[in-house]
Amino acid sequence: MSDLVDLLLEGLPPQAVATDPDVTAAYRQDMAGFCASGVPAVVVHPTTVEQVQHVMRTATRLRVPVVPQGARTGLSGAANAVDGCIVLSLTRMDRILDLDPVNRTATVEPGVVNAALSRAAGEYGLSYPPDPSSWETCTIGGNIGTGSGGLCCVKYGVTAEYVLGLEVVLADGRLLHTGRRTAKGVAGYDLTRLFVGAEGTLGVVVRAVLALRPAPAPQLALAAEFPSAGAACDAVCAVMASGHTPSLMELMDRTTVRAVNAMARMGLPETTEALLLVAFDTPDPAADLAAVAELCRTAGATEVVPAEDAAESELLLQARRLALPALERLGTNMIDDVAVPRSQLAALLDGVAAIAERQGLTIGVCAHAGDGNSHPVVVFDAADPAAAARARESFDAIMALGLELGGTITGEHGVGLLKKEWLARELGPVGVELQRGIRSVFDPLGILNPGKVV
Amino acid sequence: MSDLVDLLLEGLPPQAVATDPDVTAAYRQDMAGFCASGVPAVVVHPTTVEQVQHVMRTATRLRVPVVPQGARTGLSGAANAVDGCIVLSLTRMDRILDLDPVNRTATVEPGVVNAALSRAAGEYGLSYPPDPSSWETCTIGGNIGTGSGGLCCVKYGVTAEYVLGLEVVLADGRLLHTGRRTAKGVAGYDLTRLFVGAEGTLGVVVRAVLALRPAPAPQLALAAEFPSAGAACDAVCAVMASGHTPSLMELMDRTTVRAVNAMARMGLPETTEALLLVAFDTPDPAADLAAVAELCRTAGATEVVPAEDAAESELLLQARRLALPALERLGTNMIDDVAVPRSQLAALLDGVAAIAERQGLTIGVCAHAGDGNSHPVVVFDAADPAAAARARESFDAIMALGLELGGTITGEHGVGLLKKEWLARELGPVGVELQRGIRSVFDPLGILNPGKVV
Repeated sequence: MSDLVDLLLEGLPPQAVATDPDVTAAYRQDMAGFCASGVPAVVVHPTTVEQVQHVMRTATRLRVPVVPQGARTGLSGAANAVDGCIVLSLTRMDRILDLDPVNRTATVEPGVVNAALSRAAGEYGLSYPPDPSSWETCTIGGNIGTGSGGLCCVKYGVTAEYVLGLEVVLADGRLLHTGRRTAKGVAGYDLTRLFVGAEGTLGVVVRAVLALRPAPAPQLALAAEFPSAGAACDAVCAVMASGHTPSLMELMDRTTVRAVNAMARMGLPETTEALLLVAFDTPDPAADLAAVAELCRTAGATEVVPAEDAAESELLLQARRLALPALERLGTNMIDDVAVPRSQLAALLDGVAAIAERQGLTIGVCAHAGDGNSHPVVVFDAADPAAAARARESFDAIMALGLELGGTITGEHGVGLLKKEWLARELGPVGVELQRGIRSVFDPLGILNPGKVV
Repeated sequence: MSDLVDLLLEGLPPQAVATDPDVTAAYRQDMAGFCASGVPAVVVHPTTVEQVQHVMRTATRLRVPVVPQGARTGLSGAANAVDGCIVLSLTRMDRILDLDPVNRTATVEPGVVNAALSRAAGEYGLSYPPDPSSWETCTIGGNIGTGSGGLCCVKYGVTAEYVLGLEVVLADGRLLHTGRRTAKGVAGYDLTRLFVGAEGTLGVVVRAVLALRPAPAPQLALAAEFPSAGAACDAVCAVMASGHTPSLMELMDRTTVRAVNAMARMGLPETTEALLLVAFDTPDPAADLAAVAELCRTAGATEVVPAEDAAESELLLQARRLALPALERLGTNMIDDVAVPRSQLAALLDGVAAIAERQGLTIGVCAHAGDGNSHPVVVFDAADPAAAARARESFDAIMALGLELGGTITGEHGVGLLKKEWLARELGPVGVELQRGIRSVFDPLGILNPGKVV
């Protein structure tokens, strides 16, 4: 270990290398529960591409595993340390290098915080749409590594759709340029996209060219109450089938609504089985909302309440953003992330309710309903081993149901450690073999974030 | 060769196997000039996934190269046969298997013609945006293989952005499922995207799940005349910097305008140096066009003519669609496809004019200006070897300039044979090595479309 630190210090300043166990312990894990984490040998905080290259060359030379980390807000254990590893924290590489309104691009280092980029883009009348719940703290590098989504995806898509080009330090320390700065390009295989969602297993992203969009108009939202999750999902399908594209379409079940009220006294309607929030940032959002209100009533909504203005709309969105923190206050959480074709969302939610009943557990559901992406949150008492076992069973049963309904085990949180066994079920043996083959091309020694993804 | 045919006939009906040299000769090449093509041993026309698997298993067993083909409308030689190969034509797998307005997806076989899908989607109030010039004849499989674009990309993006999931027959005949039917998904490395633009070198796409969008409103267009290409590009930058998103923004230079008039008597203004077409499909296109007209005048437009209605707008678009056929009538063509950051488009076009002058050649330019993607068309007399050599030099000089300006050698036509040497210059040695490594994972024997891409 002393060899390792000595070699690292040949290319890193002392303040970039931490070995104090009290310090390094803080870098053991991300925000996923139920995932193993090891004890890092050392945590490094490079500030330049060259320093990252030095770290990877050293790791290759000594065959030491490297776990890249952003803000550790991930929910799949992808950033968890393994014993004896170098934790490679990218948070100090946090410069926005370029913002270009003509080409609508931003060039950033990986440690830039999502919200910092959004705000900087806003000063040019632009926006960076991907908005995971952790957007005030999570980093662009982490967003790329996990392929994160957010509330905006139903209209604006996910992180992958905004990554044009990358600079990546490979396992052996060489620098790879992928992609482009242009609006289009088909020169060779799309390596850029391969790194998005790869959770740091193929290389370390040290620079990204991102696409920006013109800043949208403020959203106007409505809240609709439904007597069942199925009825709310019918409304979602009707809205999408009729050609509308909301900027947000979110569902919260009764458990989630009550939890949010308990946490923040939002005054949400507690008797409803499912609350649907729909917003538009179109030129005439009131007209679009009126059409959606009608579709909601036809689908069985008992109450439809349009927000008066953008401020009231923002309050509704705020309620939705509180869903996960609010559910966390009910007990220990396992947050699932199953996406199904949106026409199957009702079947998924009915199935989740049946699982909760069978297991005698609370499962609160919030969903990016417009994407068919739901986050069933299994709530349980971690001090009770039987309850914990039932929670894990429920969590797995939800993924099995998602696959059965033509969906995926992860819409936006990633695989990491949490869903690694399930990935093989989704991909099948041919897919797994090819994914392993690709990983070997990039990291023949297997030192990059070992044990994650495939 | 008789062995090969006998084995193929074990899993294919006789009418799906052609060996008559007069027939197979028609399958030697796509629409790219200046690319070598070999003589196929046999052309097969499977109609089922199982038949494609049989073809690939046979090819693997006998180590025979396979060249997958769609409608052969490609412009890079990617579909050109090699001596002794199996040409695997997918045009008879042309079923639209599913159109789903709730999930906004289409599931198709690779031989479906682009326009057929567009029309079928239209019946559900949906659209499939990618619209390459050859859309009336080119196939979805070919579009995926080449990663094709079109006129719509400035607002709606390229083929890659519409491919959600694939079924692919691998080199050894195994079937791979990639991606998803859901709006989101981050389960493992993005193999789907790897196949887009891979020109059939990684596997044979036999089924695709595509994203659809609500059908847009009819476009309203304007035409603006500029005294120089640079002034037109200034207008393009001003439009994009001011937050507008046109549904189309195309540029034609004087050579192109004259060629179109000569072919179709369109009455386009022949004295202008650059004609810019801009269209919107927004709720109030007239207002957006008025704002753009003002920006054009500020950038130096001498004349701005808005179309009266959708029909007149369609005529303007029709003129643009005739650009390449019209230039073809002037002589033999080499069509380039360089994309640069849109702020560099003026520099690219100035450079192209300088190259034309230096080489004493006509180079007509049409460009997807909003994407920074230009198609300089080098026109020359193929009977004159010196002119042909100068044409090739010009073609290469344009790519070199594109790279110098931070661009790519191909925005939407692909690499194929035509730009293979240039790909290495764009990717660099590290990129090439990794791309080759990925290819070996999918096709260790090197039987899939050998000699193309990397």
